[in-house]
Amino acid sequence: MDEAAHTPDPTPSSAATDAKAQRILSGAAKVFSDKGYHNASMRDIARETGISLAGMYYYFASKEEMLFSIQQFCFRAVLEGLRERLDQTSGAHDRLRAFFHNHLSFFIANVREMRVLSHEGESLTGEHHREVADLKREYFRALTEILEEMPGLQWNESELRRVGLSIFGMVNWIYTWYDPRRDGTADELADRMCALVTRGIDNLDSV
Amino acid sequence: MDEAAHTPDPTPSSAATDAKAQRILSGAAKVFSDKGYHNASMRDIARETGISLAGMYYYFASKEEMLFSIQQFCFRAVLEGLRERLDQTSGAHDRLRAFFHNHLSFFIANVREMRVLSHEGESLTGEHHREVADLKREYFRALTEILEEMPGLQWNESELRRVGLSIFGMVNWIYTWYDPRRDGTADELADRMCALVTRGIDNLDSV
Repeated sequence: MDEAAHTPDPTPSSAATDAKAQRILSGAAKVFSDKGYHNASMRDIARETGISLAGMYYYFASKEEMLFSIQQFCFRAVLEGLRERLDQTSGAHDRLRAFFHNHLSFFIANVREMRVLSHEGESLTGEHHREVADLKREYFRALTEILEEMPGLQWNESELRRVGLSIFGMVNWIYTWYDPRRDGTADELADRMCALVTRGIDNLDSV
Repeated sequence: MDEAAHTPDPTPSSAATDAKAQRILSGAAKVFSDKGYHNASMRDIARETGISLAGMYYYFASKEEMLFSIQQFCFRAVLEGLRERLDQTSGAHDRLRAFFHNHLSFFIANVREMRVLSHEGESLTGEHHREVADLKREYFRALTEILEEMPGLQWNESELRRVGLSIFGMVNWIYTWYDPRRDGTADELADRMCALVTRGIDNLDSV
């Protein structure tokens, strides 16, 4: 008889962990988005996901662990998506367009998470806060590196910061208004927003 | 003896009402901004303002009345400010610049209220929600009317909506990042943001 077969395995298989953890995080994002993080309880999330409190605590030690995992997952995914696109894209304008396409397609598919990232940016504490702040800085730097390549401009630090954060405002605010029936697909919206910030209203062709 | 002197006056003088009501709303905006509307209690606001619960209920029947009054005050004030500026401004570019100056100077002076407007846009119900939605529509229409005057463009409804909401994203998102030491005054930021959306990065002079 195989000894190993009798050894209890304290950790679930990695595939099962991922699927169940993802289900918990997705439910947590819905609850945080609807009620706000501070107002949400583990009980609300258990009700939303249909997973017991004990089942949830098996994966996440606390509500803050969940908020941290949502933020960490989103920033890592959007950064990885951007890097994959940039690896295949040359030319500053096309690279900026890739940023818009990546950001909008990811967050339009994850709009509850986008609301949570926007509203609960300051709700994390300590090490959690630092780790997410590092990811945000890395993502912001990725955008400003693209901007610095734009031809004909002598960027200075303030102008890079202002333009970069203006672009983040444009693309993040969509969680308050985006409607696929009125505003087109993520890719259509990305093209028009990119045209607006590169050519400006003065040179924006009407479509 | 003057009879009128003995008539009890059930309403405080209008000036006193305004000052005390403003103090309550300012404290409520701080509490809503810090804790979120749903998580805030009348007791928190009493503690913040140093005004008794009874004193607060004299002016506002409920927490929702306060949230409504904050939103109504801000949208009315920013609309009135815009109209005053537009009355003295001709030329589509200068009128768009007036929009940026007005919006940024008002909300940089009222940044807690800006956070409350952004995070609690959907927290009002019934008639309160409708009234604020009407003010928002009016403000959005004021911006799109300016955009429609921009020369050389044949706007269509989707493009107006996308550009208008992109601009609102840029100017509203500043509550997450604006720092007067790094980003200049409201007027300086307004000029640079207006240059970005009118001329675009391709024609943006570095300063």
